[in-house]
Amino acid sequence: MLDVPSTYYHDFNPTLDDVRAAHERIRGKIVRTPLLRSERLDDRLGGTIWLKAETLQTTGSFKFRGALNRILQFDEVQRKNGIVAWSSGNHALALSYAASRQAVKATILMPQEAPKTKIDGARANGAVVRLYDKTKETREAIGAEIAATTGAVIVPPYDDPDIILGAGTVGLEIVEQAEEAGIKLDAVLACCSGGGLVAGTSVAVTGASPGTAVYSVEPADFDDMARSLASGKPQRNDPSALSICDALLVPTPGFYTLPVCSAHLAGGLSATDTEVIEAVRFAYSELKLVVEPGGAVALAAVLSGKLDVRNKNVAVILSGGNVDPDKFASYIA
Amino acid sequence: MLDVPSTYYHDFNPTLDDVRAAHERIRGKIVRTPLLRSERLDDRLGGTIWLKAETLQTTGSFKFRGALNRILQFDEVQRKNGIVAWSSGNHALALSYAASRQAVKATILMPQEAPKTKIDGARANGAVVRLYDKTKETREAIGAEIAATTGAVIVPPYDDPDIILGAGTVGLEIVEQAEEAGIKLDAVLACCSGGGLVAGTSVAVTGASPGTAVYSVEPADFDDMARSLASGKPQRNDPSALSICDALLVPTPGFYTLPVCSAHLAGGLSATDTEVIEAVRFAYSELKLVVEPGGAVALAAVLSGKLDVRNKNVAVILSGGNVDPDKFASYIA
Repeated sequence: MLDVPSTYYHDFNPTLDDVRAAHERIRGKIVRTPLLRSERLDDRLGGTIWLKAETLQTTGSFKFRGALNRILQFDEVQRKNGIVAWSSGNHALALSYAASRQAVKATILMPQEAPKTKIDGARANGAVVRLYDKTKETREAIGAEIAATTGAVIVPPYDDPDIILGAGTVGLEIVEQAEEAGIKLDAVLACCSGGGLVAGTSVAVTGASPGTAVYSVEPADFDDMARSLASGKPQRNDPSALSICDALLVPTPGFYTLPVCSAHLAGGLSATDTEVIEAVRFAYSELKLVVEPGGAVALAAVLSGKLDVRNKNVAVILSGGNVDPDKFASYIA
Repeated sequence: MLDVPSTYYHDFNPTLDDVRAAHERIRGKIVRTPLLRSERLDDRLGGTIWLKAETLQTTGSFKFRGALNRILQFDEVQRKNGIVAWSSGNHALALSYAASRQAVKATILMPQEAPKTKIDGARANGAVVRLYDKTKETREAIGAEIAATTGAVIVPPYDDPDIILGAGTVGLEIVEQAEEAGIKLDAVLACCSGGGLVAGTSVAVTGASPGTAVYSVEPADFDDMARSLASGKPQRNDPSALSICDALLVPTPGFYTLPVCSAHLAGGLSATDTEVIEAVRFAYSELKLVVEPGGAVALAAVLSGKLDVRNKNVAVILSGGNVDPDKFASYIA
């Protein structure tokens, strides 16, 4: 039993059917991303690795699923008042694009130091981007003020039931695709920041494929989910911690996500920045896929032996591929 | 009627069934690469583009299909004597890997200036790589000498029936996948050097989907196939021509490929190096795929408007993704 304050949502107990309902809602509007294989990767690890390439999702990350699942449930007033949200990147890209597709106005708050690719992308998608200074302003305060004055709906990046269920469709498709390939998965590894992807995925996978273990994977110094699961109490990261995984720099698990993860995950893994760069490079040279650091952390975990995958079928989510060219060049050099 | 010397193989008239037989032979040993979509690409072009990502094929290019199709038909003596081949890269990678998987020895002749990625890759696959100086030696002479002294089988990169039929399985899968998606393709665009891919693809596509037009796409100053088709006579490229498409620098169409292409292609397109770089950059930023210049030439053709794709369903083959990191960094910068 997780020992957390009452601010955490223990009464949010999503089921496989909830994820299936989200999938019905967004199916045909999202990419059913392929589950890829690489002989070279399998040879190296001695197991069978199934790569869920959410890098190939619309807007380059799994975030599009949750964003669309949320917006498609807006009523007329919400559609008219629009959205306000904050994000260092992938949620911004996904939400701004999903909003523009649904003719809903979006205002996105992004930290000044967010990757230029992501800031430019959100603007190109038609969103109003408001940059803020992390050291002087809090995004929650700016967002609340905009919501209060305009009636805009705040759409959080992960700590929201519909965002979690939308993200969980990744897990549902993984199980479907594994069945199509005639195999049963031993484990699924999901990149983890606030925990939306891994929470939703764990609901879908443990529901549809009992016995398949689901793990979160975080950057080494941002392993708040792993430590929270291990200790049974929510843990925070050291505020001075740094990582190249710009998409995964959340200080602590979400109020919605932690109880779900606690109920469904087999455990939490992590990978260092050095291991992540090796994974980005491997994805470039051997898989021919562009994966951003935060999207490569689960691959990094298997490449660096954090889980014994020998003679096992293991699915690894590549969660995003939005990375500035100069950074990418330095990783693959 | 093509007006070419008798050295060209007019009596090689492969059919859809021949490609199907090759597919039966290699199926399960190759990757059935996905046919990908991008809303962003469709929006930009006003058509529906289906990307056949052969970059995700084993060894990073379509070449693995032909190499495997050839080697799987070796008899015991051929298997024992091994292979000798020449290639600037992708054929070398594919053949060396296919050979090692089938426990056949391979000797590969590569020009000194071939991409380091490709030279290192062929060696890592267990091949003996012999570098040669293009200005002083001819690969055909070196290869013939090795074949004469060792009994090794010469496996050409494209001008060989089994290589062409193996490559043609790309086209067969494209039609299958289009049918699975419930659409009929208006056109298929294949990158073209010696013409193995486009010849095999044209046989499969025109056979399985009558009315679908197949086009070769070449680098602008290496458009020997396009000019040969247009003039009805084999054409050569200017020996001083240069292109960043290192995989597509063949001087003239093949003896086997030209008559097949003449019988089945709707025409030949081309793209400049500037247009190719734009396509490599687009694949990086919007598709999250690593595509080498020669593998991006067909995408470059549609992005630069060489074919009217508005309101059409058009398949574009991304034929390879083996590119040195420093070169790739310069293209996406």
